[in-house]
Amino acid sequence: MSSDQSAAMLIIGNEILSGRTADANVKFFANILGKQGIPLYEVRVVRDIEIEIIEATLALAEKYDYVFTTGGIGPTHDDITTASIAKAFTVKLELHKPSLEKMESYYGAHLNEARKKMAFLPEGSVPIETRITSAPGFRIHNVFVMAGVPIIAQAMLESVLDTLPNGMPVLSRFVEAYIAEGDLADIMDAIQTEYPDIDLGSYPFFRNETVGLSVVAKGRNIDSINSAIEKIATHIKTLGHELTIDAELPN
Amino acid sequence: MSSDQSAAMLIIGNEILSGRTADANVKFFANILGKQGIPLYEVRVVRDIEIEIIEATLALAEKYDYVFTTGGIGPTHDDITTASIAKAFTVKLELHKPSLEKMESYYGAHLNEARKKMAFLPEGSVPIETRITSAPGFRIHNVFVMAGVPIIAQAMLESVLDTLPNGMPVLSRFVEAYIAEGDLADIMDAIQTEYPDIDLGSYPFFRNETVGLSVVAKGRNIDSINSAIEKIATHIKTLGHELTIDAELPN
Repeated sequence: MSSDQSAAMLIIGNEILSGRTADANVKFFANILGKQGIPLYEVRVVRDIEIEIIEATLALAEKYDYVFTTGGIGPTHDDITTASIAKAFTVKLELHKPSLEKMESYYGAHLNEARKKMAFLPEGSVPIETRITSAPGFRIHNVFVMAGVPIIAQAMLESVLDTLPNGMPVLSRFVEAYIAEGDLADIMDAIQTEYPDIDLGSYPFFRNETVGLSVVAKGRNIDSINSAIEKIATHIKTLGHELTIDAELPN
Repeated sequence: MSSDQSAAMLIIGNEILSGRTADANVKFFANILGKQGIPLYEVRVVRDIEIEIIEATLALAEKYDYVFTTGGIGPTHDDITTASIAKAFTVKLELHKPSLEKMESYYGAHLNEARKKMAFLPEGSVPIETRITSAPGFRIHNVFVMAGVPIIAQAMLESVLDTLPNGMPVLSRFVEAYIAEGDLADIMDAIQTEYPDIDLGSYPFFRNETVGLSVVAKGRNIDSINSAIEKIATHIKTLGHELTIDAELPN
């Protein structure tokens, strides 16, 4: 399955790595980007440490068409993402006046030095503004730098979607049954070979203390997806199992 | 904050990258490893593609003391983790007889070729066995290769904990209040400077449609953690806010 565009995410997040918080952005970004035909190909989570942020940003920016970072653009001492990204691209920080004005109007007398830091963006970057917060994210080269708080990160993603190309979206269908993975391995292998333009994956789950399996067909050719899913469903039925199948996707 | 030991996770997971499933292992692994004094320093999620798995495995294995992979060790065609890891360390796969015997006894007549694949491990690796499944994970060098299904991954982690050193656990306490991050930035900066042996982080949240903040102090020195948290709590009170503070950690 080839793709025109590719994306990666870089999560700058001590709170994820310490186990305090579960990431809540990857699933949302993956779905939104996938629908726009820009599949997510890699995710990294690194600590709030300058060299880690720089190395991961540059590695991902070189390998993929777009990189989306989340986290570390707030006002506190541990919010070092903006400065680290500027260093990665060897540019200085400069005041983004419209953002400072927005923040002045929002914070009034509470606009302290810590908050003003959020109006400084790397030279040459384009601010990412939302209605949720007066402090912006920004785009520099192919890197989109966003807040970590999910509702802000998601608003920032939605505000840049129009600036990204529309690739051919990745479609998917699934069939689920209380069947063991090993009992479907041969047929899945055969069907994957028959339809090289889709990705066929199988994901075991436990529900009601029983082992079950989701078989997912993904790709850009809906006919291949439909045929593959039908063949797997038929096979599951011949093995005597009930199954759940999602509705057919629109053509 | 220095550490004796470090860990990374590599999640081999098309289903995470497609947005179909949210990862459920990172938080668990981070907490368990952190308690044992082996903090998690990086996470990567890559596609089920051999070269991606090989490159990420080798990069993380070189950089950190331990690497834990999850996903892709099942019986189906897309389960390529074991073969990819063997290739990464340029060794062959060989039959692990005790696992095959276990699987024969568990599966009986249902032990097909696809399932037998799970009894082949890279030469020189040590199997990771659990009571949950007859198919093993394995350790090779400093890489622990585990299933992706959370209850199996977690059982595999627990079964190897005794083979890992006990570092000094990372402790943490937090204080939460409905206060904006920017109003605490200065005091946090001062307290971080005063206690260089802890990591002070702040994480905004939205609850009941109100902005709040968790301030987390982490480290190995409980006295520094307690002092820092008390000072921040006192400061929040002087600003006129209510707060929640977690119970003091055992000394």
